[in-house]
Amino acid sequence: MMTSEPGGQVTSVETAIMSDPARESNSHRGRYTEPVPTSNLVNDGEDFPEFEPFEEEGAEPRSYAPMAGSLAVMGVDMCQEINKPNHYTTAYDNPNLVIRRGQEFLMRITFNRPLGQGDDFQVEFLIGSNPSPSKGTLVAVTFGSRHAGLWAGRILELQGQSVIVGITPTPNAVVGKFRTYVAVVTSNGLLRTRRDARTDLYLLYNAWCPEDAVFVPDESERREYILNDAGVIFQGAVGAVSHRSWMYGQFERGILDACIYILDSSRMPIYNRGNVIQLVRKGSAMLNSQDDNGVLVGNWSDDYSMGRPPTAWTGSVQILLQYANTGVPVCFAQCWVFAGVFNTFLRCLGVPSRVITNFSSAHDNTGNLKTDLIFKTDGTPDRRHTRDSIWNYHCWNEVFITRHDLPPGLSGWQVVDATPQETSDGHYRCGPSSVTAIKEGLLCHPFDSGFVFAEVNSDVVFHKRDRYGTLSPYRVDKTHIGQAVYTKAVGSYAPNDITYTYKYPEGSAEDARTMTRAEEYGCERDHSELDDPQLTVSISSEPVQLSQDVNLTVEFHNQSDEPRTIKAHLAGSVVFYTGVTANHFKDHDFTVVVPARQTERVALKVTAEEYLPHLGSQLCLNFVVTAQADEQSLTAIKVIELLTTTLGMTVSGQPQVQQEMFVTISFTNPYNFALLNAYLAMEGPGLVSYRTRHYSVIEPRASISWKESFIPRLDGPRRLVAVMVCDNLRQVWGEVDVEIKP
Amino acid sequence: MMTSEPGGQVTSVETAIMSDPARESNSHRGRYTEPVPTSNLVNDGEDFPEFEPFEEEGAEPRSYAPMAGSLAVMGVDMCQEINKPNHYTTAYDNPNLVIRRGQEFLMRITFNRPLGQGDDFQVEFLIGSNPSPSKGTLVAVTFGSRHAGLWAGRILELQGQSVIVGITPTPNAVVGKFRTYVAVVTSNGLLRTRRDARTDLYLLYNAWCPEDAVFVPDESERREYILNDAGVIFQGAVGAVSHRSWMYGQFERGILDACIYILDSSRMPIYNRGNVIQLVRKGSAMLNSQDDNGVLVGNWSDDYSMGRPPTAWTGSVQILLQYANTGVPVCFAQCWVFAGVFNTFLRCLGVPSRVITNFSSAHDNTGNLKTDLIFKTDGTPDRRHTRDSIWNYHCWNEVFITRHDLPPGLSGWQVVDATPQETSDGHYRCGPSSVTAIKEGLLCHPFDSGFVFAEVNSDVVFHKRDRYGTLSPYRVDKTHIGQAVYTKAVGSYAPNDITYTYKYPEGSAEDARTMTRAEEYGCERDHSELDDPQLTVSISSEPVQLSQDVNLTVEFHNQSDEPRTIKAHLAGSVVFYTGVTANHFKDHDFTVVVPARQTERVALKVTAEEYLPHLGSQLCLNFVVTAQADEQSLTAIKVIELLTTTLGMTVSGQPQVQQEMFVTISFTNPYNFALLNAYLAMEGPGLVSYRTRHYSVIEPRASISWKESFIPRLDGPRRLVAVMVCDNLRQVWGEVDVEIKP
Repeated sequence: MMTSEPGGQVTSVETAIMSDPARESNSHRGRYTEPVPTSNLVNDGEDFPEFEPFEEEGAEPRSYAPMAGSLAVMGVDMCQEINKPNHYTTAYDNPNLVIRRGQEFLMRITFNRPLGQGDDFQVEFLIGSNPSPSKGTLVAVTFGSRHAGLWAGRILELQGQSVIVGITPTPNAVVGKFRTYVAVVTSNGLLRTRRDARTDLYLLYNAWCPEDAVFVPDESERREYILNDAGVIFQGAVGAVSHRSWMYGQFERGILDACIYILDSSRMPIYNRGNVIQLVRKGSAMLNSQDDNGVLVGNWSDDYSMGRPPTAWTGSVQILLQYANTGVPVCFAQCWVFAGVFNTFLRCLGVPSRVITNFSSAHDNTGNLKTDLIFKTDGTPDRRHTRDSIWNYHCWNEVFITRHDLPPGLSGWQVVDATPQETSDGHYRCGPSSVTAIKEGLLCHPFDSGFVFAEVNSDVVFHKRDRYGTLSPYRVDKTHIGQAVYTKAVGSYAPNDITYTYKYPEGSAEDARTMTRAEEYGCERDHSELDDPQLTVSISSEPVQLSQDVNLTVEFHNQSDEPRTIKAHLAGSVVFYTGVTANHFKDHDFTVVVPARQTERVALKVTAEEYLPHLGSQLCLNFVVTAQADEQSLTAIKVIELLTTTLGMTVSGQPQVQQEMFVTISFTNPYNFALLNAYLAMEGPGLVSYRTRHYSVIEPRASISWKESFIPRLDGPRRLVAVMVCDNLRQVWGEVDVEIKP
Repeated sequence: MMTSEPGGQVTSVETAIMSDPARESNSHRGRYTEPVPTSNLVNDGEDFPEFEPFEEEGAEPRSYAPMAGSLAVMGVDMCQEINKPNHYTTAYDNPNLVIRRGQEFLMRITFNRPLGQGDDFQVEFLIGSNPSPSKGTLVAVTFGSRHAGLWAGRILELQGQSVIVGITPTPNAVVGKFRTYVAVVTSNGLLRTRRDARTDLYLLYNAWCPEDAVFVPDESERREYILNDAGVIFQGAVGAVSHRSWMYGQFERGILDACIYILDSSRMPIYNRGNVIQLVRKGSAMLNSQDDNGVLVGNWSDDYSMGRPPTAWTGSVQILLQYANTGVPVCFAQCWVFAGVFNTFLRCLGVPSRVITNFSSAHDNTGNLKTDLIFKTDGTPDRRHTRDSIWNYHCWNEVFITRHDLPPGLSGWQVVDATPQETSDGHYRCGPSSVTAIKEGLLCHPFDSGFVFAEVNSDVVFHKRDRYGTLSPYRVDKTHIGQAVYTKAVGSYAPNDITYTYKYPEGSAEDARTMTRAEEYGCERDHSELDDPQLTVSISSEPVQLSQDVNLTVEFHNQSDEPRTIKAHLAGSVVFYTGVTANHFKDHDFTVVVPARQTERVALKVTAEEYLPHLGSQLCLNFVVTAQADEQSLTAIKVIELLTTTLGMTVSGQPQVQQEMFVTISFTNPYNFALLNAYLAMEGPGLVSYRTRHYSVIEPRASISWKESFIPRLDGPRRLVAVMVCDNLRQVWGEVDVEIKP
């Protein structure tokens, strides 16, 4: 049973003014004719009296006196078994009808006698408080020649005392939870059914309807971007891409109400909720708790003692149910959690969406194209004066919508980003921003396009800071940022490289045109005139498992005609995935002589003993090689995410809905250190709800095994995931796929 | 002495996480290399140690040992008497230097000996915490061949031990309060002056600089839109335009710090504050208290018991000082107060701005072009089902800036609106939106252009609601909304009709093109096919003084070939200026016969006894004539703002700065009712600060007189204003102009 506490957070000023209930009820006075309706789930009062007499000029109000033979409604059936499959909503674990707009659905109305000539009735759908036909929040559907609201209605079949009607909500109807009434027209008034929550229906966006702004032409894509309740989110670094499963769970019980609750908490006016552009923008604001009491609190500090570490979540369901139950923002999230939960919100309401990972993301930028890294006179990184950082990766969402508010050609995938960012314009929402416009550099259109552009296109400017504090750029890397943009492929768990949708090939004429346009639209770029470097350096490494040594290969290339003696320095740090340094643990100087027109490779080993004590709960190492040769400075950066072992997961039992099955999670500690405070969690949408288990310590080489039983609700290909989070090991994943028979 | 309490409002969640000071200081950890600097006025800690040794490779850090003959700074003079007139900042009542960016200013630095060959020094300007050269928050200015930051520096003159330097901040420099240091380069480090608040300087936007985004080419316009500290705001209704004086007072003591305090409260990153597009947008959010603890609380309810009525303010100064002193939003404001205070904020920081009044404004719209008014079957207004209202007028601001983020041609005046609006997208900021883009219907550019467009271009759709609740439009008025857009003229207190800047002439080809574009960009419009009406009705009236009878002339015009009998109804209400009904006091039925092709006039009198008891504290009457003739419905609306008497104001004494003068406010109650709880206030920027006086009752025919002394600070043409607000009389104004000699 879900209890909602909408809002609940007020500033002390609002408390002072608004705590008086009499004043609260008048807070719209003088400003609005009625309070603006912003609550879908909570409605006070009756919609209608039992009988609504006609107000005729000069007529006396008459009470209702039913005459023999008067038409009356005996029952209303929402025909779920027919409607849900037609509307692709069978998976919703919800006792009420769930349908999509722009498409006909059936109702069976049973009267006290067969319909006859002269009988007249209408079906009415109401949403929110103070519903109004002019706002689309009160829609009356008629079935004869009399015209009423915009939703079409027709009688499909007469079956004795019952009539089956077909009703088609418009493709831009308000989205949310409607109340249903049937009103019989009598000679002196309207006689309506009483309020019956069983006939409430949920109306969603409809990607199957060509007139809906969320229309997706391809069936496989609809199945992926609306109906898939599990997915993967890519992480790691280019060349060493890892992934985590995420269980979107948009069909699980209570989730649809939780998504509407988010809109109610945002105080988004009900009558705007059919506008997908406004809805996704409001969603990007509400997913973070900054400035609006939203769903998730971001925390990158490594101190998660007041909540759950971001790496401990296996999916969105637990988070959304907790938020809807308490009204309090959930602790804690990092970018993939914001994106994963936002994806659930979007797919649940019917908006086609997917999670995106951008590798080497210039996050927290101010809309200019310069990510400035500062180095000291000796060439080593100057952390004290460096303000910018490059995120190993950043996750956001894309939604597939028509942009009626823009010139043609900019519809399709749009970026929306729910991770709060102080520096863009400080108001904690981002998008929708057209991906096509990003690619073309057309940054003059809403919303936040300059900011998103910079995340994928910034140049990394390397500065040397002299003794006076002056910065001089010595190198500009135009390709490091936004090296790759990944999303889950349609129909499989493989990655789909969609970088080409955001950027033209580096060096192409179109790319140059895009960058020029971006500068014309206000994105500052570095234009230092630097000589082509005759010396270059790069770092490479094989993938590294936690507890293994790191073998770096540093390659110096000398394009000049003379041998060069290079004084080099290797700096090693543990970093957060945001690129911010956690602990600096290594400094190593070395010298290399590179003959003319040759390449010299230096192998450098960093042992596990060197980095293990400094990891904390991070798994990311950052190595910077800086070098000086005469007047030239060289820099190369290598980010390594340490790989961890996995959890074993197996299922057993009869793989069929309503049959008991078992899942077993097994793990053996392969490391020579104990794992402390091990917290395990598992979930599988349509299979097993969120379960947890705790072990205070798992000794080196020790094994654990955890078995749970479950009864599948949904059929088809399904996935279960599990994660283990320890104080000294950030995350270990497991997953298993199973095909459930109907 | 102003005390600032930045922020101060936290949600209970943030309290739970952030109340631990140790955690607070680490709240950026893992996410940012340093906390994002958002506070200009409050800085903790030292910028520099007394001596900053050079960090050389392999060098031992040496302590500073001054040698005989070493250069040292003895004094720094900010040359205010020269700089302030050159930078048009003499009017600021501020002990520190105030200058504008993109323009040279002088400093005189006095050393312990004359400068010699080999001497090297730099001047450094720092703003906010963690200042950085890459963010423009730490700028070093050099005077020789050594290059440092982006601000140009040159030695203008050597005078013995002193040197006069000229420094030119870039035209896009960060705006705010900088700390100044002079650093002498010694052989082993930098020796800086100590922190000295007397050398702090304020850097503003510069409309005199062609490279600044706020450049205004015309000197008269600069004097009006930057330097004028008093103005008028137009109100009332078309055909009966009234005005109120507003004292912007941007140069009064403490106001510049209050404006920076607003930016600090908003947590706008310091390094973004040179971007005028972001600054004005953030300002439009911060002027209202919704969602961000901003300056003013909106209240239209007529219950102002917890604060001051919006009509009681004479200007911005009192409001801004109270907000900066307490950190608590000020109660209460309506649209002209938001606009007036916002204008002060903008002009104070150097952004050219003006206050705009839009008559018959479709406020609180949802971005579509339909303002729906509902009428009953008998033609009378159906208040219960009408959701929209037409504001008699609405006030916003325009700023004159270059829109680098848009295609060419859209720079110039931009709409920014600080009045909070729930229904646009619910996030309480609006603009900047290009006025040119509004006129052209190019609504595909940021920010909020669709919403502003609807405010001036909505159609009023008149609906008849039938017995079943169905709405049928019977008339569309395409000209009522946005009938006129006014602003104060340059150099006088007269109105300037600038409607043509927002709209092409009604019915022109360009207007049709604009409306088509707007629809293509998503603004829904009504397209009901309605017959041309053969009968029309209009209402007119002479201006009406409070306590006088209202004489309405209702004119029916019959274009048909047959005489028509019209059954008409007059409804009279007292309304808020938002068009929302306060009290309905009159219903009158009458019949008119209009011969073919003729006009028939009906004179209707509404006596003062009829409306006076229902006024409350409003002064606005709304009359609706609805009529039926056969199948046709007619409607006409007339809004009348009752005129009130004025306060008498005279000045005496010698009109010269630093000489004692007197102002006398006199008033005689001309009405036959007592005025209760009369609250008088006066102010005059550069003359007299905000003063108040209270009278519990002013009997009919009784007189009051209030005299205050003052000493003018600024010369030139000056204005003083006074207002009286009573429980039963919303506002009575007085003003007097005086020319002060230097």
